[in-house]
Amino acid sequence: MSDHDPKNEAANAMWGGRFSAAPAEAMRRFNASIETDKRLAEEDIDGSRAHARMLAAQGIISAEDEGAILAGLEQISREIADGAFQWSEAFEDVHMNVEHRLSELIGPAAGRLHTARSRNDQVATDLRLAVRTRLDRLAAAISDWQRALLGLAADHVETVMPGFTHLQPATPVTFAHHLLAYVEMAERDKGRALDARRRLNECPLGAAALAGTSHPIDREATAAALGFERPCRNSLDAVSSRDFAMEAASAASFAAITLSRFAEEIVVFSTPQFGFMQCSERYATGSSIMPQKRNPDAAELIRGKTGGVLAAFQSLAVTMKGLPLAYSKDMQEGKAPALDALETVEDCLAIAAGMTAELMVFPERMAAAAGVGHTTAVDLADLLVRRAGLPFREAHHVVGRLVALADARGTSLSDLPLAEAQGVSASVDAEMLAALDPAASVRSRAHVGGPAPEVVRAEMDRWRTALGGA
Amino acid sequence: MSDHDPKNEAANAMWGGRFSAAPAEAMRRFNASIETDKRLAEEDIDGSRAHARMLAAQGIISAEDEGAILAGLEQISREIADGAFQWSEAFEDVHMNVEHRLSELIGPAAGRLHTARSRNDQVATDLRLAVRTRLDRLAAAISDWQRALLGLAADHVETVMPGFTHLQPATPVTFAHHLLAYVEMAERDKGRALDARRRLNECPLGAAALAGTSHPIDREATAAALGFERPCRNSLDAVSSRDFAMEAASAASFAAITLSRFAEEIVVFSTPQFGFMQCSERYATGSSIMPQKRNPDAAELIRGKTGGVLAAFQSLAVTMKGLPLAYSKDMQEGKAPALDALETVEDCLAIAAGMTAELMVFPERMAAAAGVGHTTAVDLADLLVRRAGLPFREAHHVVGRLVALADARGTSLSDLPLAEAQGVSASVDAEMLAALDPAASVRSRAHVGGPAPEVVRAEMDRWRTALGGA
Amino acid sequence: MSDHDPKNEAANAMWGGRFSAAPAEAMRRFNASIETDKRLAEEDIDGSRAHARMLAAQGIISAEDEGAILAGLEQISREIADGAFQWSEAFEDVHMNVEHRLSELIGPAAGRLHTARSRNDQVATDLRLAVRTRLDRLAAAISDWQRALLGLAADHVETVMPGFTHLQPATPVTFAHHLLAYVEMAERDKGRALDARRRLNECPLGAAALAGTSHPIDREATAAALGFERPCRNSLDAVSSRDFAMEAASAASFAAITLSRFAEEIVVFSTPQFGFMQCSERYATGSSIMPQKRNPDAAELIRGKTGGVLAAFQSLAVTMKGLPLAYSKDMQEGKAPALDALETVEDCLAIAAGMTAELMVFPERMAAAAGVGHTTAVDLADLLVRRAGLPFREAHHVVGRLVALADARGTSLSDLPLAEAQGVSASVDAEMLAALDPAASVRSRAHVGGPAPEVVRAEMDRWRTALGGA
Amino acid sequence: MSDHDPKNEAANAMWGGRFSAAPAEAMRRFNASIETDKRLAEEDIDGSRAHARMLAAQGIISAEDEGAILAGLEQISREIADGAFQWSEAFEDVHMNVEHRLSELIGPAAGRLHTARSRNDQVATDLRLAVRTRLDRLAAAISDWQRALLGLAADHVETVMPGFTHLQPATPVTFAHHLLAYVEMAERDKGRALDARRRLNECPLGAAALAGTSHPIDREATAAALGFERPCRNSLDAVSSRDFAMEAASAASFAAITLSRFAEEIVVFSTPQFGFMQCSERYATGSSIMPQKRNPDAAELIRGKTGGVLAAFQSLAVTMKGLPLAYSKDMQEGKAPALDALETVEDCLAIAAGMTAELMVFPERMAAAAGVGHTTAVDLADLLVRRAGLPFREAHHVVGRLVALADARGTSLSDLPLAEAQGVSASVDAEMLAALDPAASVRSRAHVGGPAPEVVRAEMDRWRTALGGA
Repeated sequence: MSDHDPKNEAANAMWGGRFSAAPAEAMRRFNASIETDKRLAEEDIDGSRAHARMLAAQGIISAEDEGAILAGLEQISREIADGAFQWSEAFEDVHMNVEHRLSELIGPAAGRLHTARSRNDQVATDLRLAVRTRLDRLAAAISDWQRALLGLAADHVETVMPGFTHLQPATPVTFAHHLLAYVEMAERDKGRALDARRRLNECPLGAAALAGTSHPIDREATAAALGFERPCRNSLDAVSSRDFAMEAASAASFAAITLSRFAEEIVVFSTPQFGFMQCSERYATGSSIMPQKRNPDAAELIRGKTGGVLAAFQSLAVTMKGLPLAYSKDMQEGKAPALDALETVEDCLAIAAGMTAELMVFPERMAAAAGVGHTTAVDLADLLVRRAGLPFREAHHVVGRLVALADARGTSLSDLPLAEAQGVSASVDAEMLAALDPAASVRSRAHVGGPAPEVVRAEMDRWRTALGGA
Repeated sequence: MSDHDPKNEAANAMWGGRFSAAPAEAMRRFNASIETDKRLAEEDIDGSRAHARMLAAQGIISAEDEGAILAGLEQISREIADGAFQWSEAFEDVHMNVEHRLSELIGPAAGRLHTARSRNDQVATDLRLAVRTRLDRLAAAISDWQRALLGLAADHVETVMPGFTHLQPATPVTFAHHLLAYVEMAERDKGRALDARRRLNECPLGAAALAGTSHPIDREATAAALGFERPCRNSLDAVSSRDFAMEAASAASFAAITLSRFAEEIVVFSTPQFGFMQCSERYATGSSIMPQKRNPDAAELIRGKTGGVLAAFQSLAVTMKGLPLAYSKDMQEGKAPALDALETVEDCLAIAAGMTAELMVFPERMAAAAGVGHTTAVDLADLLVRRAGLPFREAHHVVGRLVALADARGTSLSDLPLAEAQGVSASVDAEMLAALDPAASVRSRAHVGGPAPEVVRAEMDRWRTALGGA
Repeated sequence: MSDHDPKNEAANAMWGGRFSAAPAEAMRRFNASIETDKRLAEEDIDGSRAHARMLAAQGIISAEDEGAILAGLEQISREIADGAFQWSEAFEDVHMNVEHRLSELIGPAAGRLHTARSRNDQVATDLRLAVRTRLDRLAAAISDWQRALLGLAADHVETVMPGFTHLQPATPVTFAHHLLAYVEMAERDKGRALDARRRLNECPLGAAALAGTSHPIDREATAAALGFERPCRNSLDAVSSRDFAMEAASAASFAAITLSRFAEEIVVFSTPQFGFMQCSERYATGSSIMPQKRNPDAAELIRGKTGGVLAAFQSLAVTMKGLPLAYSKDMQEGKAPALDALETVEDCLAIAAGMTAELMVFPERMAAAAGVGHTTAVDLADLLVRRAGLPFREAHHVVGRLVALADARGTSLSDLPLAEAQGVSASVDAEMLAALDPAASVRSRAHVGGPAPEVVRAEMDRWRTALGGA
Repeated sequence: MSDHDPKNEAANAMWGGRFSAAPAEAMRRFNASIETDKRLAEEDIDGSRAHARMLAAQGIISAEDEGAILAGLEQISREIADGAFQWSEAFEDVHMNVEHRLSELIGPAAGRLHTARSRNDQVATDLRLAVRTRLDRLAAAISDWQRALLGLAADHVETVMPGFTHLQPATPVTFAHHLLAYVEMAERDKGRALDARRRLNECPLGAAALAGTSHPIDREATAAALGFERPCRNSLDAVSSRDFAMEAASAASFAAITLSRFAEEIVVFSTPQFGFMQCSERYATGSSIMPQKRNPDAAELIRGKTGGVLAAFQSLAVTMKGLPLAYSKDMQEGKAPALDALETVEDCLAIAAGMTAELMVFPERMAAAAGVGHTTAVDLADLLVRRAGLPFREAHHVVGRLVALADARGTSLSDLPLAEAQGVSASVDAEMLAALDPAASVRSRAHVGGPAPEVVRAEMDRWRTALGGA
């Protein structure tokens, strides 16, 4: 190797045997993936350790070389952790940076580590490990937020508020019931993250470039060493597929959307017009020009980051959609979006948990709003069905006309003069009008999934048991 | 109801009690969802049957009313199946069209069906049922395609072809091994569809508008009658969430991407330049101007439909991301994309299965290509490692220089004069150069996941058992 | 041609010379684009007329054939307009359906129409014409909505309302000023539509399949006849590019986003909590279960349709991104999304115009809200800068502390006891506190672009002149 | 201000007057936009200079303060350029970092700079300036690539190659004609970038938070100083709109798609099976395991980056679509995607230009392929129309059957025995069969937009004049 052009030394040391020219300088930068790859360094070294041990166990390299390689990797791992490692764009990616440093440390034995391996199965392994870790963290962060929601709900089982449809007051619920809806949604988000984790947990190592290797490797051993369930069953699939990264980004997207809806509500409900709640000062910010401002920035940022998370999935999907088997360089562009999406949503969940835990709630504003907009009109219709035997559709029409009448008089249904109400339908009686209290309405909805306090308390117990620690 | 303004009759019959003006004509059209809703008619009637039976069992309506309602629904179901049903845009959606017809058929008893129910829980139930059915069909269609892939692979376990990376010849594989990669990918796609199905299988009925109902309903009963695992545990979540539709669209997207990659390969591999395969005439088309053309239209259309499937997911995600709880009308726009995406991919899978089954394969073209481009160069490097003890990185460099030499002479590695080869490295011997046969290379890669025929045959047996019927 | 298999008759009549088998039945359906193509029928016939006239003028076909062709096309045009035309999936697309009917009507002369033409340049021409028409309609619909905004604004030049940032009250503006922001945004949306129209206005006819033709055609003539600025300058580009459809979908997306933001505000501002406005009954709907509901469905639907419009652009982009030159069948999938996106936004604009024109506004609610939340705090800071010479940053801090004081006392800034206010800063005087009136604040912001009534009136005059007819 | 909690010092110095608690540490990080904002530093300082000069010219600040501010800004500008500037996350964004440093440098006068300004109009101005610069660079980079395409085309006006449809050989063209298609596409991409630039060129400064200011500012002056055409005409629109960033991302998307299609062709055409071209070694890379590999990485990376560029547009669109007026914090998330998309495509264009300029082309492989697949079949049909008077549709059918006959005999059309050919149609003569030469076919297509060399040369002259310097 002494005779090749020294200016090519860097990139070509790994693959340049047949090349007579070095990459264009702009191309060298364009091709490098160091910034993203640094995030895979730990996984890359773990994979190399497992690979080296397997090579030695199979007699493909000597025990001595194994020892040198493992010691060298250990030192590199420390250098990276300490920030002392010298990353170089010339060595394109994490794999070559590590191998180059290894050869500095231990000499030619470093050149034996890449036996029966390619960067293609190596990067597929690294990325699966990195995504797996982040999916676990995502699931844990979801549980943390759920616990924060439960903690807040505990104080608001009797806090009556309007339930909305079309953002118009519809029927009274309680704030605890409202919060539990998010606990349910988050649980499904967690399930998707864990399904993605389970599905990705197969090991690409041993697929080499795309077709396996003629060396007598033991793929079960490397898979087990890295915590995978089993080796991938097809070498082409192992290096060609990134559906695991896409599925992780998809799982992150669902969680982001749940958070975005929660954030949308915080923004609306903390306007002075609603006045239901306010972010604590620790999750709000002020204005550089308007001294009075207290803005729900945390919620807005959570909502605003959703677009980027969705875009990560889209970016991966668009890229993969056109690629034949096996590895194409396009896939390099898929690493950062997947990791970014997972980390962004993990951050959003942490902020959401803190914001939820410290949320300032104004129950009296909620209660006052619960009675505005004839929210118990359907209760009156139900009474007309149950007590007066009207078909629901007819009862609905009667109450609709009573509402129009009340609006015209600027009053509530319960304050309508009985005589006028009976002018609309003789079936209406005084007791019915008196029953239109939001809290009573909530109590009356006591079936599975309903807002009645005893039902909600039971749900909360169930969740506390499932989630632990809340 | 005799006194309300007849010009409002249509839309207002269901909810117009408090309204004094009918919708603007453009608004009536804009608001109607009939075209999409027709696809939910069967599910809507099934849901109404279950609801009516439960209402009667709980004593909320009489057995007599139950009988009338069920008979009426039965007739409507037949009318819809026969195409005799009169859909009207004036009745906005499927729910009101059915209820209106029911009232024509059975009179006021029809008005009792909507007791303890809202269009919000009704549409959530209908859509879950419709998505569930389509997810089942999607999974079945994936299995059909997998069986077609296996059937084709059976003839090609020994058919050597180049494995590609970067669409450049890399290392020889077999066509059967290549096809099995898609069987693996498709299996994960199926898994995602079935996970989505499992997660959605909770029943929204009983959530009513958003807060449940004061009537003594039995949600376990309706859930069981409709094949759901259990009722949704939170009424707000039940009517506010469309993550199930998004997850179905996401599952469809993954399958579409797998198909698109397969289609991309068909397009490239059936060029005269590759000449590996050709679509049968039944899956190709000609040109209106060029008499000689035979175009792989089926593959192109499959590939081309992927964009629309991805867009369906995106469309749903964008819509849901900004919505507070509970129901907002925006959600109406999510119905068609989810169903379209599922049906499109189901169609694509059926075409892919037919195209795969009839694919004309030219093994001699594949075999000839397998030797082009020094595809066994890595085998030579591996021999230098195993027999001459070179570190892999050094062996890689030696072979790289041999490749450059062979290219300069316009020959293959195995035809290099030994003396010249040994000028590059003394470790090269004649036996090594002789061993560079693609078929031998394939046979040497016999570990789990490798392309060696006996490994691939074992995989095919495993798949046949798993899939049945192939 | 009498000897070919009659079962192939349909599809093969146009391109089946070299084929011995008909398409699979599923493939025939998969391949057909009739439903979308019907929307291009008028454009297709216009293109054929121009082509036939040119062929005759160039002596490529006889005047007699030209006459027969034009008469046949005229009749087909009438049949389509009357709904009498028999569309057949067997003839794949609009081009072949029309040509087949033409051959029924005029015999072999019909076979001369396709001289020097391919379906590739034909469909590119049809789609450009169809997109062009819809871009013109989109631009006109934007102007209509702008006029509706101006009409509403005319009544509200003095209607003070809170301007919001972060949906928190920030500084008072007027409702007219707020509406004019949308007029500006819409104007840019219109500009994008018109730029797209200008850029697409080149004629693909004559590019034939991809490489032009050896017949002596006159491309300037067909371009002019169809209202194009010029022929496309490169035959490959002419049939390979769909950027014009993508740009149209992009333009539609911008308009959809503007509308969606407007709709979001309608939804929030028409809650009882805000109470600023209400949709007229003609643009609202009720509930099937809650008799009191009046929901802003028109706004929600506009907002909800945005996801689908964005998805159309995405769908086209994803499809085109992977295609080599020239025509690929994937492009067929791009026709419907582009047309759908344009028509959807046109519909949304029409609904928005109607909803705007009939919007019920409650100025007293706006005015009351304008004073809540210390919206004139920055005015006080500005006074401290101008009258007391404080640096703005210090004045901002002083007012921030006054706001905290007022909040602690549950009062407004103007009602703070002077002595207490001066405890925060001696620079505060009574006159300053008295000046914190929202209407005065609005009047004081009289520079270009500000909310002061005389500025807004001048802007409205400018817009009326520009738009006409308002 | 001496009495506030020192741990709040940082963030609260700018807006913390009314706050008693500092942000949570996680929130502080979540809220900070420093990394992105560094990219806006130069623009921010330019904007502050223009604002300070205007304030002084209007008498709002003193000439002395103006001088101090300008000197301080000058020093900060140098510190940033030198990397000496101390960025702090505690100061959230670029605006506050600069203002804080200014106050260190010049004391209380720094507090006067923010008079009549808000971060809202400031960031809108900064971002417009940054996008404008990048759009100019994008347009220039497109021209560079066009010149590289023209330079390559100059050598290939007579290089015959197959034109493809459906990636099947269709009709012969020349490589120069093929390259010119990309010049056309790129020109439209440039046009979109320049349209976006023109439309964004209005100045938000003076809109303050959203409603302008009561200070007597001169918006025309700041607009002119910063190179804007005019001030934005509505203060709400000025701070609420990000359509300019979206349009820039959209423009970048179109260019990315054009590049991606070009890259797709490079990948396919540089396979050994096609063998039309090869990237120079400076734009290719090797394999870590396969010594023979030479992969078109530059093309793959260009193609792979398209997904991310499209995602940037999508991310912005999704975010903006749900936001009421005026500023919401969500918008912060839109800055990076817009700048990233523009810079990524600029990089891709530079790589494409280099790759194009150094592309190794193999004309003999193209020429050989041009005759494969009966690419001149349509020429035969055209001859049958012109010389034998057959209707085109019938000629097409005749040639289709001749193609099937030639395929069955494994020969080309021109080598068919005349007797056999005349068995299909008596109109065929020997001269016709002899005329089926690809180069002759190309020469015969000499109308505007056709591939004939003299037409292509004229087009190239036109482009050279338009682009200059090629």
